Amino acid sequence: MTLIDELIALLGPERVRHHPLDLLVFSKDAGVTTGDVVAAVLPETAQEVAAVVRIARRYETPIVPRGAGTGLAGGAVPVSPGLLVVLTRLNEIHDVDEVGLTAWVGPGLINLDLSERLEPLGLHFAPDPSSQQACTIGGNVGTNAGGPHCLADGTTVAHIYAAEMVTATGEMVTVGSEAPDQPGLDLRAVVVGSEGTLGIVTRVLVRLTQNAPDVATLLIGFPTIEAAAAAVSGVIASGLIPAALEIMDQPMVKAVENFVHAGYPTAAGAVLLAEVTGTADTVASGVDVIRSVSETNDAIEIRVATDADERALLWKGRKGAFGAVAQAAPDYYLHDTVVPRTALVEVMTKIYEIGDRYELQMLNVFHAGDGNLHPLVAFDAKEPGMLDRVQEAATEMVRVSIDAGGSLSGEHGIGLEKRGLMNLVFSDIDLDAQARVREAFDDAGMMNPHKVLPEGSRCFDAKGVRL
Amino acid sequence: MTLIDELIALLGPERVRHHPLDLLVFSKDAGVTTGDVVAAVLPETAQEVAAVVRIARRYETPIVPRGAGTGLAGGAVPVSPGLLVVLTRLNEIHDVDEVGLTAWVGPGLINLDLSERLEPLGLHFAPDPSSQQACTIGGNVGTNAGGPHCLADGTTVAHIYAAEMVTATGEMVTVGSEAPDQPGLDLRAVVVGSEGTLGIVTRVLVRLTQNAPDVATLLIGFPTIEAAAAAVSGVIASGLIPAALEIMDQPMVKAVENFVHAGYPTAAGAVLLAEVTGTADTVASGVDVIRSVSETNDAIEIRVATDADERALLWKGRKGAFGAVAQAAPDYYLHDTVVPRTALVEVMTKIYEIGDRYELQMLNVFHAGDGNLHPLVAFDAKEPGMLDRVQEAATEMVRVSIDAGGSLSGEHGIGLEKRGLMNLVFSDIDLDAQARVREAFDDAGMMNPHKVLPEGSRCFDAKGVRL
Repeated sequence: MTLIDELIALLGPERVRHHPLDLLVFSKDAGVTTGDVVAAVLPETAQEVAAVVRIARRYETPIVPRGAGTGLAGGAVPVSPGLLVVLTRLNEIHDVDEVGLTAWVGPGLINLDLSERLEPLGLHFAPDPSSQQACTIGGNVGTNAGGPHCLADGTTVAHIYAAEMVTATGEMVTVGSEAPDQPGLDLRAVVVGSEGTLGIVTRVLVRLTQNAPDVATLLIGFPTIEAAAAAVSGVIASGLIPAALEIMDQPMVKAVENFVHAGYPTAAGAVLLAEVTGTADTVASGVDVIRSVSETNDAIEIRVATDADERALLWKGRKGAFGAVAQAAPDYYLHDTVVPRTALVEVMTKIYEIGDRYELQMLNVFHAGDGNLHPLVAFDAKEPGMLDRVQEAATEMVRVSIDAGGSLSGEHGIGLEKRGLMNLVFSDIDLDAQARVREAFDDAGMMNPHKVLPEGSRCFDAKGVRL
Repeated sequence: MTLIDELIALLGPERVRHHPLDLLVFSKDAGVTTGDVVAAVLPETAQEVAAVVRIARRYETPIVPRGAGTGLAGGAVPVSPGLLVVLTRLNEIHDVDEVGLTAWVGPGLINLDLSERLEPLGLHFAPDPSSQQACTIGGNVGTNAGGPHCLADGTTVAHIYAAEMVTATGEMVTVGSEAPDQPGLDLRAVVVGSEGTLGIVTRVLVRLTQNAPDVATLLIGFPTIEAAAAAVSGVIASGLIPAALEIMDQPMVKAVENFVHAGYPTAAGAVLLAEVTGTADTVASGVDVIRSVSETNDAIEIRVATDADERALLWKGRKGAFGAVAQAAPDYYLHDTVVPRTALVEVMTKIYEIGDRYELQMLNVFHAGDGNLHPLVAFDAKEPGMLDRVQEAATEMVRVSIDAGGSLSGEHGIGLEKRGLMNLVFSDIDLDAQARVREAFDDAGMMNPHKVLPEGSRCFDAKGVRL
């Protein structure tokens, strides 16, 4: 028996993909790196996932969990030859508790499908990554995904109460609990955002959020990025926390408008998309605050969406931003850094300067409210030397963000892409502490190895100087 | 040289307490258990803490960190003879970032002192345990403390961005980061609430919250606990999340009123203390919602505090509840369980029934908005058999909470008191996962051993059946 034989005996041939074309399809996520896939399996139950893990372990084949493959940082791309465990078939909504506002769901459930199926109950799942039409809840858990509405609602970790997980030894563990305020160590919080390095999540207890009784969406054109950023700071300083505060620069506005025809003001230097939710009174007073702060900051156009259709149209522009870019160039590279809100203008200026210096076509859209930047470089990978230029510029952009007191990643994760940069924000001892916790879950290095933490994070062991 | 000699050489005799009277003082927290203290040391810097840990490690003496000793679950009480590291002298506010809304503070800083010193800046630290006049930020971190205002603001973990920590080997580690959206494993979240079992926190980066521009406090009398609980459910169902929703039953209202003379309606079966914060508009509409829901639920008196003095007086009753009880009986035992909000009435009924059956004098005050119950038993420990009755009743109360889908502890922690009950909410495998993470920080079992996790949590090792 080989690994493949055993997997086929367990799952049948249809659910064990190992033909060259399959391996090619599964060797990439939505980012730029190609991995080395031994086979991709499609389990349908947690028990099957556990059985797959036990088989792979016997063959000492590393395991990489994967959802919809929309990740941009290479988290679901095996580095050394690995077995992909594709979780898209664990996509059921098991139990919806309308009173306690929770649901147990499969990790393969598509983010937007959950909210659409909850719509008749007046509920939704708050994290709303731009990829929400395709990305899965399990992927959201793996990267602690954000989205425009996470400014007020918090990222995925604030919306996960518990997770059932298959460990590297094939055991089933529950982290967090159905009961509120779990006692003991909060392993739930360390599993969320761990990018598949601690185990494979097979069921998730999500928090459901009531739809707000009222909502207003504003689209505001400013002469410059600086003016838009100043308006964002002004709104936050007023004490209002809007549901969303998104900025697009002029190149992005033009690309989007060309694609979705949402009536975005292409003459503006930057566009701010703001949303306030709550009761009718709260929303009205929030709109007043945003309007007044925007006027103080030289807004050239203020549009308030008056009905659901217009709101949807305004959001369609923002959510379709990355699709729009696909029209502009064959390839794109989407950055993900975070800076203190007060450093937005300073860092954006440096990022434009880096883009100019490397002669790159750059478009910007970002979660301005929480300082999460997403510079996007549109390019043609076939142009000689282009990929190197893009990647060198990327590293410079991360560095200027960190120099301004920012961080490596807001929501896309570290994956392969940024693990070499982890030492910019953590000391050797800090990384060692993370590596030890990882070993506590997976001492054999089975689960998504070579991801997130740089090689040699267990520095003390490697150097033989354990105290 | 002995352990004591080395500690005195490091810290001087004044900061190494080991005379019998000192040991008696430090052998208890605010709960009922007495521990076994070898010495209590009072370091003044993180470097001294690290040096103390390295010395204790050489003598194989377990270490127990302690703040103000206001804990109720025995978390700061050494079980086997241990060295207490008392952190009250690490109480500085190091850096306040008024723009980024953060501050680095010492773990020994008293919770209320931080908010009072931030008052001129219009800022405060949101977690507000009832003990906030005495308890320390470090203790808040250790227990992931809550408080009345955590309904809207979240518990301590939502207000800690990073912590500097001395590990069991005497190294300095930083968990979390100054930058927003820390990448990698979120060790910050697992350290918060770990009750000193992972290391000794020596500096904390706290999140500061802007004082709301407007606030209103309502005191509402209801004929019964059921009516008050129904009003709480009604308010939450309306979509409003007030800053606080606190219920007191009639015995507690009478004790409080007798103590603070705040004008609480002693004829009411239960009193709801509600607070809404925000802009003037938001507050006015919130008051309307609470008033209308309360009227629907047979409120017999609704009082809205019209100025800061009256608000302070209404809160003084709630915050002084436990002081008030000290007048009623020489000893008290304060429970801490959590139930789904929808099970409040059902569980309260059972808790009253348990109190009656054990013939205990019970008073109730609880964070109704998040289902965190605090039945309080007032008693005289000198009465023969009383302590046993109190503890048997306590276990029954925890069990009825868990049976209703609730949890062991909302905010006081597990400590010694409840570790024997952890298996009511976690399987052996779940506890093993927690124990492994603990070992990743402290493989020698130096840091606050015999706390939180029951003995034998590393079940697979103990039974010799590691897979």
